[in-house]
Amino acid sequence: MAKELTSREENYSKWYNDLVAKADLAENSAVRGCMVIKPYGYAIWEKMQSILDKMFKDTGHVNAYFPLFIPKSFFSREAKHVEGFAKECAVVTHYRLKNDPDGKGIIVDEDAKLEEELIVRPTSETIIWDTYKRWIQSYRDLPLLINQWANVVRWEMRTRMFLRTAEFLWQEGHTAHATREEAQAEALQMLDVYCDFVENHLAIPVIKGDKTESERFAGAENTYTFEALMQDGKALQTGTSHFLGQNFAKAFDVKFTSKEGKEEYVWATSWGVTTRMIGALIMAHSDDNGLVLPPKIAPIHVVIVPIYKQPEQLEQISVKALEIKKNLENKGLTVKFDNRDTHKPGWKFAEHELKGVPVRLAIGPRDLENGTVEVARRDTLEKQVMSMENIGDLVPALLDEIQENIFSKAKKFRQEHTYTIDSWDDFKKIMKEGGFVMAHWDGTTETEQKIKEETKATIRCIPFGSTKEKGKCIYSGKPSEQRVLFAVAY
Amino acid sequence: MAKELTSREENYSKWYNDLVAKADLAENSAVRGCMVIKPYGYAIWEKMQSILDKMFKDTGHVNAYFPLFIPKSFFSREAKHVEGFAKECAVVTHYRLKNDPDGKGIIVDEDAKLEEELIVRPTSETIIWDTYKRWIQSYRDLPLLINQWANVVRWEMRTRMFLRTAEFLWQEGHTAHATREEAQAEALQMLDVYCDFVENHLAIPVIKGDKTESERFAGAENTYTFEALMQDGKALQTGTSHFLGQNFAKAFDVKFTSKEGKEEYVWATSWGVTTRMIGALIMAHSDDNGLVLPPKIAPIHVVIVPIYKQPEQLEQISVKALEIKKNLENKGLTVKFDNRDTHKPGWKFAEHELKGVPVRLAIGPRDLENGTVEVARRDTLEKQVMSMENIGDLVPALLDEIQENIFSKAKKFRQEHTYTIDSWDDFKKIMKEGGFVMAHWDGTTETEQKIKEETKATIRCIPFGSTKEKGKCIYSGKPSEQRVLFAVAY
Repeated sequence: MAKELTSREENYSKWYNDLVAKADLAENSAVRGCMVIKPYGYAIWEKMQSILDKMFKDTGHVNAYFPLFIPKSFFSREAKHVEGFAKECAVVTHYRLKNDPDGKGIIVDEDAKLEEELIVRPTSETIIWDTYKRWIQSYRDLPLLINQWANVVRWEMRTRMFLRTAEFLWQEGHTAHATREEAQAEALQMLDVYCDFVENHLAIPVIKGDKTESERFAGAENTYTFEALMQDGKALQTGTSHFLGQNFAKAFDVKFTSKEGKEEYVWATSWGVTTRMIGALIMAHSDDNGLVLPPKIAPIHVVIVPIYKQPEQLEQISVKALEIKKNLENKGLTVKFDNRDTHKPGWKFAEHELKGVPVRLAIGPRDLENGTVEVARRDTLEKQVMSMENIGDLVPALLDEIQENIFSKAKKFRQEHTYTIDSWDDFKKIMKEGGFVMAHWDGTTETEQKIKEETKATIRCIPFGSTKEKGKCIYSGKPSEQRVLFAVAY
Repeated sequence: MAKELTSREENYSKWYNDLVAKADLAENSAVRGCMVIKPYGYAIWEKMQSILDKMFKDTGHVNAYFPLFIPKSFFSREAKHVEGFAKECAVVTHYRLKNDPDGKGIIVDEDAKLEEELIVRPTSETIIWDTYKRWIQSYRDLPLLINQWANVVRWEMRTRMFLRTAEFLWQEGHTAHATREEAQAEALQMLDVYCDFVENHLAIPVIKGDKTESERFAGAENTYTFEALMQDGKALQTGTSHFLGQNFAKAFDVKFTSKEGKEEYVWATSWGVTTRMIGALIMAHSDDNGLVLPPKIAPIHVVIVPIYKQPEQLEQISVKALEIKKNLENKGLTVKFDNRDTHKPGWKFAEHELKGVPVRLAIGPRDLENGTVEVARRDTLEKQVMSMENIGDLVPALLDEIQENIFSKAKKFRQEHTYTIDSWDDFKKIMKEGGFVMAHWDGTTETEQKIKEETKATIRCIPFGSTKEKGKCIYSGKPSEQRVLFAVAY
């Protein structure tokens, strides 16, 4: 198997693209900016979906499905919302093709023009709040806690597999509440659910906080975010949770009668994570040998590779291998016995490393004699010989250790690349090298904008619970009350 | 709760629409022909998905995701395919909106016109075979067994919730094989998987067979179908599996090198089922009181309703009810304890009947004294008193019985409404009344067309394994070798 990954050091961006392609995660399609998610990449997404879906249901949410298309006029109802999305919309204008009368293939049938254009949803607040108007009359109808798994389209000009694609897959939660407090609590609860998932399953440490006004979701009163640091020192926002206030309720006239008999506008949240998380997963942990997947999200936990010369040896090894496979599967693990006779063990080792299978077991004739197995872990590439007898207990314990180690490593990396900075020169230097910077900011959008122009850095968030501390803005020198988190971001 | 369902006898079509609305399954959206699938309806779809997904994986398939959009030129590559779908396509022509310079809201930005229009996928053969060209070089890459869960759009003029909507949800399998035989076997295997699912989970008996040429999928060499009879005597095709021959391989130039070193075109299948199955489920089993759901597909298996006057009574009942709930949940059932204090028991009974919960348990103060529970089954509406002690065994057994009974009832209905007909007058009469008709046909598309014009009946399928029997065509009187299945269809 031809690995030939560009190293991270040589060209991080090329390493990423190589890895996405060679680990069979995704590839570009014939449609500009739209990717094909290949079976191995999709298996990771399915894992993410099933874990998150359970977390959403455990917190009282149910799934539903709303139309792919949004009437153009709905868009304009919330002024900031349309401003945020109008520039990157796929617009459906016709509903029929016909044969070209000149015999040159098929063309759009101009007689089949829609009266009102339809937008392919970039997000569903507008169509959903138009629906909620019919569903909500009384406080008894609240809270309404709904999630949708769907595809969305944002016509981005510069795309990058998983990180920024014209079409992507996501989930979007849309909830309706009787009070401001309840809606705010919901938005924060879902932020916590996300962070729990990202830290404890994807093994990526995150920093939670508020977005600044200029980075808020179009139509939100407040956007909560969680930010992760990638190995090249850039930040990646993996998801957001929005407190929408009454903006969409007002735009779509959604009122309810309170317990006290008063008519009031409904309070809202929305929150989403996307296939972008796969990009984060790759960039946070993987190395020059390929993917490194935390066991909790790996489609295959263990691969067993037989080492043999004669067919009879394979037969003997297979008996043991299938025993171990069954044993581990009974513990809830996914195990692959790679007995292909088309490839040599070394080739297989490299392939499973590339694909990030957390644990590899190799069994040869001598292992059968000694009752042993060679166990290799993907995260550290370390090998050890273990007793075959205890393998059913040793492997699950090793997987836990790997999960823990991947998280610790990422956390250590972040600690080593997080800086508290007070000098503008140091700030610029770090932003070139990469890393998280905690620095003072005067609170104005103008300064934020200028810092971005000069260094490409943006305020990733105003971290929750960070100490109030008087200081001077890193850029303007004006007074500041608190440090905020800066980084150059994906 | 206001039930007020129109009865099936009075107006079957209105009964269906009422039921879809009142059982909270779906509703129309602001976008013509696109429905909103409400949480309860979506929960049924999720059940269908999870069962089918497992069946697909057990037969060696993996999931992947392909773009929503298809370049217009791809469509024209397979001549019959474009003919079949061109008339009902949603076409994306632009990728940006802008503010109207005259200040009248937002308009399409004419500067952002796509060079080539994109079609919102009505089905994905073309974009997938364009991808397979990159994935398939050698016989070692085959078979390729891929499924996709997705939304598709067909701009139907007359829509009906679940049965025919502009956007619908489905799965589409797309497989590639080295030989004709293998591809044909795959198409038939997936037909069997579908029928297994529909008969054993949805409890709907089906008749398998070949489609006639005129009813084939656009681009298929053969389409296999399974047909079910609804309570109004109309047929409903719930899914199809296609043997595509080498049509798409030729259109997209997908060749492989065989074991013998020869270059050959790849053989293909595709197969799909959709949210239409929810329509079939409703129309096959439900009654004038509401939905009747087979337990294997019901989002809630058992509802427990407390009967009480004093709050202390509720408290005592709750202890027992929660015990029973836990007991049944441990057996893998989904149980709801409906302790809302906003509604009377009678209201709750009616609501759970409307929503088709298979088993209802009612517990009152006297039941506590006697150690009993009142058990009502939804399919027959029968009630019986059971011992509380054995409820953990009795309810699962009852659910099995209900599943079986719903299927038997549907099968009996079909038997009673399947006719072997040799007279044209009888044929016309039955087609007005409804039912399946086995009749002779001369094998020509012309006759098929004329029968359709005169009676609205179509050939649903040429049933598999039906006895060869010489006869005369019901319409033309010309010789025929075999009876085929006719019905008026949805």
